[in-house]
Amino acid sequence: MSKRPLILISNDDGVEAQGIQVLTALMQRLGDVIVVAPDGPRSSSSCGITPINTLYVTLLREEEGLKVYHCSGTPTDCVKLALDGLLTRRPDLVVSGINHGDNASCSIHYSGTVGAVLESCMKQIPSIAFSLRTRSQQCDFRPYEEVILSTARFVLEHGLPNDVLLNVNFPEVPVLKGAKICRIGRGMWMKEMMKVGEGAYRLTGYFQNLEPDSADTDYWALDHGFASITPVQLDMTAYSLFDELKSLQNEVLSHSR
Amino acid sequence: MSKRPLILISNDDGVEAQGIQVLTALMQRLGDVIVVAPDGPRSSSSCGITPINTLYVTLLREEEGLKVYHCSGTPTDCVKLALDGLLTRRPDLVVSGINHGDNASCSIHYSGTVGAVLESCMKQIPSIAFSLRTRSQQCDFRPYEEVILSTARFVLEHGLPNDVLLNVNFPEVPVLKGAKICRIGRGMWMKEMMKVGEGAYRLTGYFQNLEPDSADTDYWALDHGFASITPVQLDMTAYSLFDELKSLQNEVLSHSR
Repeated sequence: MSKRPLILISNDDGVEAQGIQVLTALMQRLGDVIVVAPDGPRSSSSCGITPINTLYVTLLREEEGLKVYHCSGTPTDCVKLALDGLLTRRPDLVVSGINHGDNASCSIHYSGTVGAVLESCMKQIPSIAFSLRTRSQQCDFRPYEEVILSTARFVLEHGLPNDVLLNVNFPEVPVLKGAKICRIGRGMWMKEMMKVGEGAYRLTGYFQNLEPDSADTDYWALDHGFASITPVQLDMTAYSLFDELKSLQNEVLSHSR
Repeated sequence: MSKRPLILISNDDGVEAQGIQVLTALMQRLGDVIVVAPDGPRSSSSCGITPINTLYVTLLREEEGLKVYHCSGTPTDCVKLALDGLLTRRPDLVVSGINHGDNASCSIHYSGTVGAVLESCMKQIPSIAFSLRTRSQQCDFRPYEEVILSTARFVLEHGLPNDVLLNVNFPEVPVLKGAKICRIGRGMWMKEMMKVGEGAYRLTGYFQNLEPDSADTDYWALDHGFASITPVQLDMTAYSLFDELKSLQNEVLSHSR
């Protein structure tokens, strides 16, 4: 059995996307690689899974240190399938991307790229999502290769705490100004529905940054030429609200008795 | 224009589900109601959206203080469509459910019921998800009516901080022991893939509670006959990791220069 690290890769743009091919080539420098990715685009599938339909998986390619599968499901399905059906040993690292489109600010909630690694993070495997702010399907990924490699090496060497993953985003620039540890910026999508017929709509809209001047956010980093590295936790509990909600608890109890 | 509160309702079990019909009847006691729900089951669609296909919406029913639409998209699509395409004024409250199946612990990440209200929470509207731990499509929801009404009344009266929603789960019991303000418990799904043919799999598995003895978790509350009320925040940043990641930032910078 290989002593090299085992690295599982998925994405939400599908197995044919340029971003996952670049990421695969980079990860092959660090370890043995298994790709399990959707058989076509699954953008914005979040942590969605396929509870009813049968999932189909096909081995597309096999060579020394590399296996590539595609799957009929979502990115999260791909990771579940890899961990529970396809892999014979636990991966040392799971990476997702490189997404064509950033997953900063509120986009993290819609992202299938992040959805894939939320799944592996739940399974307590060190996990990283990589995304590039671009509208193009063919990009020059070379400016980001060293950050991708050094982030993956760091995580392979040091691990990550359970229940925390890294979400890494890049601006589309010829040379990065650097990398910043960032929080998730506050923002939302606006004017999202375009009426295209009677009772027919298509998603559109623009992103509004709710804190454009906050230099500690992922969105600011991208706007200013930096890679953003954001530690993301599974626990979404708003602990700060516990005291305030005690009065709700009392109110609920008084009404329900 | 009505002075009553305007309440938007969605779900992920589809507009025909018993849970949303019960929730609609309850919310009609508190305000004018608009239902925009998927036209069929969309369980486990998380915050997934439909970026490419056209969304179709149909008005099914209209009476004094009530409109019911169904939509071809996900729960999150339904909320976007309601807020941006269908409603003429901003709702005072958005509720989702009552889901047939709990959304406690890690299930919150997969849940379309929670996905719907994450969307309205991003749009800074007070929002609540309601779910019942059951495997049945026909349930007795009467034991939970008072908690649902008093939670909705509390939120209509007091509001919620921006970027925080409430996730309310019920155990299937004839009489609730009470309601508890809870954090999200740690857990994961195990043995999730059942091979049903060559290269063909179906989702299955069982839930493993990683902290069964922690009485402050949502899962513990359900296991012990209490409703769980969990404040959930949009911000998933793991702030506790910032210091530790400074060395990654330095390493990345030294490699990329």
